[in-house]
Amino acid sequence: MSRPVIALLTDFGLRDHYVAAMKGVILGIVPDVTLVDITHEIAPQDVLSAALELAACYRDFPPRSIFLVVVDPGVGTSRRPIAASAGEHVFVAPDNGVLGRVFEQQVPSIVVELTEREPARPEISRTFEGRDRFAPAAAWLARGTDIRALGPSVATFARLDVPQPRMGDRAVVGEVLKVDRFGNLISNIDCRLLETVARDGAPVIRIGGHDVTRVVRTYGEVPRGGVCALVGSSRYVEIAATGDSAARLLDLERGARVVVAADRTALDAIEKGRA
Amino acid sequence: MSRPVIALLTDFGLRDHYVAAMKGVILGIVPDVTLVDITHEIAPQDVLSAALELAACYRDFPPRSIFLVVVDPGVGTSRRPIAASAGEHVFVAPDNGVLGRVFEQQVPSIVVELTEREPARPEISRTFEGRDRFAPAAAWLARGTDIRALGPSVATFARLDVPQPRMGDRAVVGEVLKVDRFGNLISNIDCRLLETVARDGAPVIRIGGHDVTRVVRTYGEVPRGGVCALVGSSRYVEIAATGDSAARLLDLERGARVVVAADRTALDAIEKGRA
Amino acid sequence: MSRPVIALLTDFGLRDHYVAAMKGVILGIVPDVTLVDITHEIAPQDVLSAALELAACYRDFPPRSIFLVVVDPGVGTSRRPIAASAGEHVFVAPDNGVLGRVFEQQVPSIVVELTEREPARPEISRTFEGRDRFAPAAAWLARGTDIRALGPSVATFARLDVPQPRMGDRAVVGEVLKVDRFGNLISNIDCRLLETVARDGAPVIRIGGHDVTRVVRTYGEVPRGGVCALVGSSRYVEIAATGDSAARLLDLERGARVVVAADRTALDAIEKGRA
Repeated sequence: MSRPVIALLTDFGLRDHYVAAMKGVILGIVPDVTLVDITHEIAPQDVLSAALELAACYRDFPPRSIFLVVVDPGVGTSRRPIAASAGEHVFVAPDNGVLGRVFEQQVPSIVVELTEREPARPEISRTFEGRDRFAPAAAWLARGTDIRALGPSVATFARLDVPQPRMGDRAVVGEVLKVDRFGNLISNIDCRLLETVARDGAPVIRIGGHDVTRVVRTYGEVPRGGVCALVGSSRYVEIAATGDSAARLLDLERGARVVVAADRTALDAIEKGRA
Repeated sequence: MSRPVIALLTDFGLRDHYVAAMKGVILGIVPDVTLVDITHEIAPQDVLSAALELAACYRDFPPRSIFLVVVDPGVGTSRRPIAASAGEHVFVAPDNGVLGRVFEQQVPSIVVELTEREPARPEISRTFEGRDRFAPAAAWLARGTDIRALGPSVATFARLDVPQPRMGDRAVVGEVLKVDRFGNLISNIDCRLLETVARDGAPVIRIGGHDVTRVVRTYGEVPRGGVCALVGSSRYVEIAATGDSAARLLDLERGARVVVAADRTALDAIEKGRA
Repeated sequence: MSRPVIALLTDFGLRDHYVAAMKGVILGIVPDVTLVDITHEIAPQDVLSAALELAACYRDFPPRSIFLVVVDPGVGTSRRPIAASAGEHVFVAPDNGVLGRVFEQQVPSIVVELTEREPARPEISRTFEGRDRFAPAAAWLARGTDIRALGPSVATFARLDVPQPRMGDRAVVGEVLKVDRFGNLISNIDCRLLETVARDGAPVIRIGGHDVTRVVRTYGEVPRGGVCALVGSSRYVEIAATGDSAARLLDLERGARVVVAADRTALDAIEKGRA
């Protein structure tokens, strides 16, 4: 049997000992685990960003990988700690919507509330449930414990409030959900929406008032410093600048308005409707 | 037999190849090791911070885990390289006090000076003993080499100068030793001192001139943005702000004075004594 | 047989999910791999820095370690993806010179272009070849696939344009290639050039107009805050400040001119020739 995988995603940062404490606890329970860091640089308590990062990569992991997600503004309150099985993967997290983007893609087959004391640490800190409750639960799952042994199944769970794109007449209006390290502006308009709008030819795209005239398949088609639009690796429309930061060049950030339209007429119509 | 664990803590940062060089050396000696990063973001040469981070998490690791700690202002000088066994864990570090906080909690059963050439690399760089001396020593220990084979035992070792809280009449005066990523202000007043002072009821707490009126068990008991005091996950009194940074809200940093008193009379008395 | 090692070096940073996506793909192919991060903090598209970091540490890794290097300004263009065997190690990277510093030290015994579809993911994103082409290739190599099975061997590959030191009369003129986390200024003058110039006694060194009078073997020989020159752990001349940042103290950065001369006469001659 191959070694189990636990992938961690938190807002703990890398300066403090918090991530290491969770890993130490896990290794005490399941010594042959492979630990992978997704990121620990989520802005403190930014549940939406954590949900998006998780959804962007969990399918790249092998079946039965366990995702330990601790971005938890409600630590110590009555929000439930949960574990869920969805598709081929398993998730442990607070029930605050951080698994919501995954659940949009994969309806979970089971969600349980982590209530059992045995798989937790003897004393559960009210300020560090990541170490005392979530990490042990993930470790026991990695060791082969059945998810049903961790607590009773629950029928409902918190939704995530992801800004959704709005369809217009031959156009769609979305927004930038994320700016990555390269300054790529990643929108909430997925490639299927793009294809719907652009089925009769190249679309026209406007972002934060700037017209993006080049719609390409890869950065390399555009000269260095040129701004373009493409479908990124997570299948969403993104605005990029070859060898440069589109965010810096256009002076835009998360939340910037993005319009994809079939042609200039459709673009003008939807922009006029806005005014 | 389960795979050995080496946990690394340095001030090397993550931009340079230094941590990877140590890991490469370790894997050449003990290929089945599990490597865990505690942190590499200790400010350069900040021995006190490294000592505190180590002490805050080593007990969360399984027995026989090895801690490779390289924060070493004296690299290349005559300060001794040491290995120590304390409680259930093993430590490799320069003898500069960086293990001092652990040794306050666990008197080491043996401390040896790393003098043997065989477990080191053939050529020891005078500027990178982390790679050439400390990492190989940790790797050989992980492989099962007896600590006594690394060099002669030593009777004394460097102490760490940790600012200590001062007891007054029904009050204790300490200071902030650390500000974490969330802006929590973590003091040097441990929970037993708090309990001693507060045995007749809720204590009053002042930090950097601000009175903290809410003493709680968890962040969630306080409305968003509210400042409170609680016993943190490492069992020390910390000042936090729910969903926000107490350090930013109060404009305080490491070194800020913290007073915990039984009541306002005791607080006034100790603050008056200060003037 | 011991577990295979894949060491990753990218400019992806640690905020986004990109590194984790590559690791997930690798673990799906070779579950018992040991993954090591060299760094992911290379400035976006800085091929030279990536080449230097790689060359500074690959020899510290055990034989047969695989280096997965993705710093790729030409992602999605016609630049070739390659794998190479050089000395005891194996490398997977875009053919853009990022392996050039290694190849200066170790002539590769074979370089192949990654053309075979089977070891790649079914669908190769034009914007994330790190995940879809490079990571799978590294994983298959780690699993034991012969490098020749990944594609045809190629006779030429991209060179790296590393600024080279220039020899004068009993003097050498180089420049700072890197500033590390400690503020050490690391030049392109290797220790053999230093020894050539300084064979009759201590050399004189000038950096960015500052004379460095102390040439030492280790930081500890100089009082705190003192600037000195020494041969660093990667065997190049570096200018350091004990317990401080030479870069900050001297207000210098990458590209600063460094002169090493046999004596003041030789230094004056080469500096005069410059004017």
